[in-house]
Amino acid sequence: MSPFNISGQRIKQDKSNTKVEEMTGSNLVRNKTRTGNYFEDFRIGMRIRHATPRTLTDGDRSLYIALTGSRDVVASAKTVSELVGLAQHPMDPFLVFNLAFGKTVPDISLNAVANLGYADGRFLAPVSAGDTLRVESEVIGLREVSNGKSGVVYTRSTAFNQHEKEVLTWVRWVLVQKRDPLAPPVSTLIPQLPSCVGSEAFAVPDYGPGVSTVPSETGSQDFWEDYEVGERIDHPSAMTVNESDHSTATRLYQNTAKVHFDLQLMSKTPAGKRLVYG
Amino acid sequence: MSPFNISGQRIKQDKSNTKVEEMTGSNLVRNKTRTGNYFEDFRIGMRIRHATPRTLTDGDRSLYIALTGSRDVVASAKTVSELVGLAQHPMDPFLVFNLAFGKTVPDISLNAVANLGYADGRFLAPVSAGDTLRVESEVIGLREVSNGKSGVVYTRSTAFNQHEKEVLTWVRWVLVQKRDPLAPPVSTLIPQLPSCVGSEAFAVPDYGPGVSTVPSETGSQDFWEDYEVGERIDHPSAMTVNESDHSTATRLYQNTAKVHFDLQLMSKTPAGKRLVYG
Amino acid sequence: MSPFNISGQRIKQDKSNTKVEEMTGSNLVRNKTRTGNYFEDFRIGMRIRHATPRTLTDGDRSLYIALTGSRDVVASAKTVSELVGLAQHPMDPFLVFNLAFGKTVPDISLNAVANLGYADGRFLAPVSAGDTLRVESEVIGLREVSNGKSGVVYTRSTAFNQHEKEVLTWVRWVLVQKRDPLAPPVSTLIPQLPSCVGSEAFAVPDYGPGVSTVPSETGSQDFWEDYEVGERIDHPSAMTVNESDHSTATRLYQNTAKVHFDLQLMSKTPAGKRLVYG
Repeated sequence: MSPFNISGQRIKQDKSNTKVEEMTGSNLVRNKTRTGNYFEDFRIGMRIRHATPRTLTDGDRSLYIALTGSRDVVASAKTVSELVGLAQHPMDPFLVFNLAFGKTVPDISLNAVANLGYADGRFLAPVSAGDTLRVESEVIGLREVSNGKSGVVYTRSTAFNQHEKEVLTWVRWVLVQKRDPLAPPVSTLIPQLPSCVGSEAFAVPDYGPGVSTVPSETGSQDFWEDYEVGERIDHPSAMTVNESDHSTATRLYQNTAKVHFDLQLMSKTPAGKRLVYG
Repeated sequence: MSPFNISGQRIKQDKSNTKVEEMTGSNLVRNKTRTGNYFEDFRIGMRIRHATPRTLTDGDRSLYIALTGSRDVVASAKTVSELVGLAQHPMDPFLVFNLAFGKTVPDISLNAVANLGYADGRFLAPVSAGDTLRVESEVIGLREVSNGKSGVVYTRSTAFNQHEKEVLTWVRWVLVQKRDPLAPPVSTLIPQLPSCVGSEAFAVPDYGPGVSTVPSETGSQDFWEDYEVGERIDHPSAMTVNESDHSTATRLYQNTAKVHFDLQLMSKTPAGKRLVYG
Repeated sequence: MSPFNISGQRIKQDKSNTKVEEMTGSNLVRNKTRTGNYFEDFRIGMRIRHATPRTLTDGDRSLYIALTGSRDVVASAKTVSELVGLAQHPMDPFLVFNLAFGKTVPDISLNAVANLGYADGRFLAPVSAGDTLRVESEVIGLREVSNGKSGVVYTRSTAFNQHEKEVLTWVRWVLVQKRDPLAPPVSTLIPQLPSCVGSEAFAVPDYGPGVSTVPSETGSQDFWEDYEVGERIDHPSAMTVNESDHSTATRLYQNTAKVHFDLQLMSKTPAGKRLVYG
């Protein structure tokens, strides 16, 4: 169950290969610092089992509402989830995505310069309080950028529950720094990705007849036939993001990317401040 | 179960009646924006079933302590709630009030200028983790103010649990903007309200003999006979409210009033900053 | 069960002995203000049963992760706690410590000048969601400082669960102000404390064979034999503490020390700002 790459070699998944040994007074500084993977550490087909599985609870449900103000009626009210025929009270899917995404950061994007895109994200099974998620990723594409300082890593990540059932999958590509600008170039592979997820791929629960009562619980007067392709909808309720809000969210998701946390570090960057999670 | 007014007409409860259709590039902006009710949308006797019921959990209990530092001993400790003879571990009543109140905002006070008062608030039944609340309001009074730009709306709101039992009721009055200053005046009705809630209206649980041990758990040395009418008590422990604190609380309660969230908007008002919930 | 000192006298545990009665308009300000104990209120052997027991829930578990980003794998994942053979999903021990510590503040350190040290901290039994903790302290040492304005109070505090089982114990010493600089000196006693907790005092759960699979869940490649005495480890992931973060944590722990909350008060101190909990 340890992380091995496809050749059966153990992956130094979140530990620099560069030995950092120096004397500080009489004490030895050893190589236990997790510095994350750099671009040249990735190989096509490499599979990573991410650390720290996470049990979701109703505490996460409340915190997600407190962080977002979400009024997703099924996640908000157990009575409504029962009305629509669900056996368990599901979590907000974006809470699940954020938690699963956070698991991939220590291995994939601790040295990221920029998060570039997502594709083919699919929610495959509902997640409820008490379920435990673990996440695996496979490197499906690599492309070094022209200045030789970094490269794009494409990964397919999948979250599993405690019954080894897939609950969520997505592709992400991210610009990752090279440790050594002189590292030899890797072979380039840009994966083919769908431009959208077709409705045939949707995992729609088997709703009961009570689903027809949901509009009275949401208060919405807009139905399927009221929407059309290309329509624009104004959402005027703006929300200012406080520093503590995004720090708290990022910690809840156990996301370890330091750009979200270290003001001293980030004050030296062009942004001059911490980045908001997302 | 949809929102109807007393004449059986469907209420456009959180949607402007003014069509906002304009072209943005090649895209149509349609009338799906929820702009909330304005003063002239309310009528005496109008009943509103508020959207988005909410299941309370122990996550809400913890967050309420984290937001307030509350040391209400019955809500803090299940052992104490058992000592006093309660079958379930009740939530802090003010958490319940805030959650129930939040439900009324999208329909009643999205366009409020000022929250004016509350009366006849009564906690009718305890609420525990797993209970789901929904809220209804009735318009019981209306009074346009002299400048013709807004009016006072009086509402009686009641929260029900999943067994349709009333758990909380209160009257609130709030100054709401008119959409159209030239809208014809509505008939004025100012409701009669009790100046205080008499003890005969209190819903006191049937406490067991263990209630006598509570003072040892609270550490308080002040009892019923130690208080007198007109006495003043100094509470010297001040607490500075951080922006994230009140944003988080307001989101937890799914309260959508933008005065609490939009710094850019509020920086143009005389206050110059976001309002704290309350 | 009320707080009595060792002579059987009721302790005025969180109430000033100085009567504060003054007229404010026509209203009497009475002595219900909790001003906490001052140095001269403590006696060797005094035992205090702290108020407000607290039931821990999964809401606390989530909030602790959201406040710290903790990736303690046993507290994070119920599946891992089952793997290692634990019957219940334990809480992070430092969450338990912080909650238990918070209980002692109203009685011991409301008038503290500085928190000086901790010793002999031992986690004696795991705590799970649904457990209720209460805390007792005994004064085990006292030493007035030379300027006569304050003194060091040494306490042994112990947290008990609802089955009266000890779950945590620690010694703390703290510098506490005197109410009256002219109060007669108390007898000095400085307790003998161990310089470290020996491994024979560790309460190690009876782990099952599944504990050997834990490294695959943590992702760590460092084991017992990889560490040596005197080794230094660099932890480069810094985290900036936001005001709301530490206020929220301190409230969650029901810690009432005003140095963490009152910006107006603290802006007059040399620090000029609120202290972070710790």
